[in-house]
Amino acid sequence: MSKIKIAVLQVKTELEWEKTMDKVHSMLTEAKSSGADIAVLPEMFSCPYDGRYFRTFAAMGHEKTVERLSQWAAELRLIVVGGSVPEADAGKLYNSCFVFNENGEQIARHRKVHLFDVDLPGMRFKESNNFTPGNEITTFETRFGTMGCAVCFDLRFPELFRAMAVRGAKVVFLPAQFNMTTGPKHWEMSLRMRAVDNEMFVVGAAAARYEGFSYECWGHSAVVDPFGMVVSDCDEKEQILYADIDLDRVEQVRQELPTFLKLRRDVYTVAE
Amino acid sequence: MSKIKIAVLQVKTELEWEKTMDKVHSMLTEAKSSGADIAVLPEMFSCPYDGRYFRTFAAMGHEKTVERLSQWAAELRLIVVGGSVPEADAGKLYNSCFVFNENGEQIARHRKVHLFDVDLPGMRFKESNNFTPGNEITTFETRFGTMGCAVCFDLRFPELFRAMAVRGAKVVFLPAQFNMTTGPKHWEMSLRMRAVDNEMFVVGAAAARYEGFSYECWGHSAVVDPFGMVVSDCDEKEQILYADIDLDRVEQVRQELPTFLKLRRDVYTVAE
Repeated sequence: MSKIKIAVLQVKTELEWEKTMDKVHSMLTEAKSSGADIAVLPEMFSCPYDGRYFRTFAAMGHEKTVERLSQWAAELRLIVVGGSVPEADAGKLYNSCFVFNENGEQIARHRKVHLFDVDLPGMRFKESNNFTPGNEITTFETRFGTMGCAVCFDLRFPELFRAMAVRGAKVVFLPAQFNMTTGPKHWEMSLRMRAVDNEMFVVGAAAARYEGFSYECWGHSAVVDPFGMVVSDCDEKEQILYADIDLDRVEQVRQELPTFLKLRRDVYTVAE
Repeated sequence: MSKIKIAVLQVKTELEWEKTMDKVHSMLTEAKSSGADIAVLPEMFSCPYDGRYFRTFAAMGHEKTVERLSQWAAELRLIVVGGSVPEADAGKLYNSCFVFNENGEQIARHRKVHLFDVDLPGMRFKESNNFTPGNEITTFETRFGTMGCAVCFDLRFPELFRAMAVRGAKVVFLPAQFNMTTGPKHWEMSLRMRAVDNEMFVVGAAAARYEGFSYECWGHSAVVDPFGMVVSDCDEKEQILYADIDLDRVEQVRQELPTFLKLRRDVYTVAE
């Protein structure tokens, strides 16, 4: 039970919800037939990443998207880390990742804790115009053990990843949409560093690039091992990225290079 | 006062202490004549990085090395981040970095908090056979503002860097000796990630490679800016690496990409 095949669905989000969802279903089916145990979707995979779409897609009800993921997880006997959807709740919107086990039962919901508000040369975005941040660190139990998830900009906060590792996560999933400005500079390095800092696996699930759209995603989904090495990665096109990982590698690296097991809690506080 | 020229002295440590020290003096002199404000030495720059040498060099008295650095700092009107020396105190040895201002006054002493005990394929080392770890996070005041320092393996612990940043450090110096196994995999990435996580400058001061010696250093000293970009770097040979930095860039990046200023202390604890 330590060996897992992960499928990252680097989906290109269409402007029509139904069209994207059809594609997701066929990609999940293909992932299953290729032997995947867990499938991971990108951030906002069913809703174009643009302020104009967030509220209209949310008004349609995130339940519709989430119910399909649940059905497909059960139908295909797959753990599905459901990227993220604009979740409407009590008049507020959250950028939320729902996770389902192979019975289709919801086992986690992570509301993006750190919203993407930046004002960089060439990249200005204010996610907080539409969304409210979550307040919880998210780990969940699977038949393979404890795992965690976070969404996109959350990657920039080492404390969040530390806390997931301390809570027992050996794999952390990160649905995301880094862009053409920060993607080439920070995306892979950040995935690798969160992995090696915590000596765990990190799975970055990016959307495919939608050329000409207002927000172009960097793509480049990647799976990183506990020593910070890239197990599997890809370019910016729509595709399924596979990675075979062995969870026993977590304990091995933690013994060989004792950092996670040698945190100096007497010198500094450690997020948990 | 926001613009600083940093000189990293990537020294090749000789087996004879006097020979290394003569070289350090001439490199410091050259750095000063090139306009440097701050000079940084590598970890154990005056003592070969090998268990056989640590105790014999320590028995000679670290004070001798430290006094010369103090004299030279005053003589050349340079801030000197003095790499590290085997510091003997009450029967114990510490891997310690002493820092001097341009008057030659000691303004900091950092005892390496995380000792290098690893058992990797191709790299086994147990620094704790000889050394005792320190218990303090180190920041200090200069005429340019607050700065911090740590030593080598300390780089692997994000909490230590977070705490220095929270205490006001805009530049952190890291005398180090990564090796041929972990150097190519983790060195530059770690410097870059600590910089961008805290949106501050990080200066990695490595020793030059001593080919054929029991421990071969990876070299590749580098200075990284608050956006995680390499300002200046070099290969493994003995040399002085210069970098011109502007401390105002810290505040600029913190505004453009608000991560350090948007830590969610309500969700997780932050080291300080």
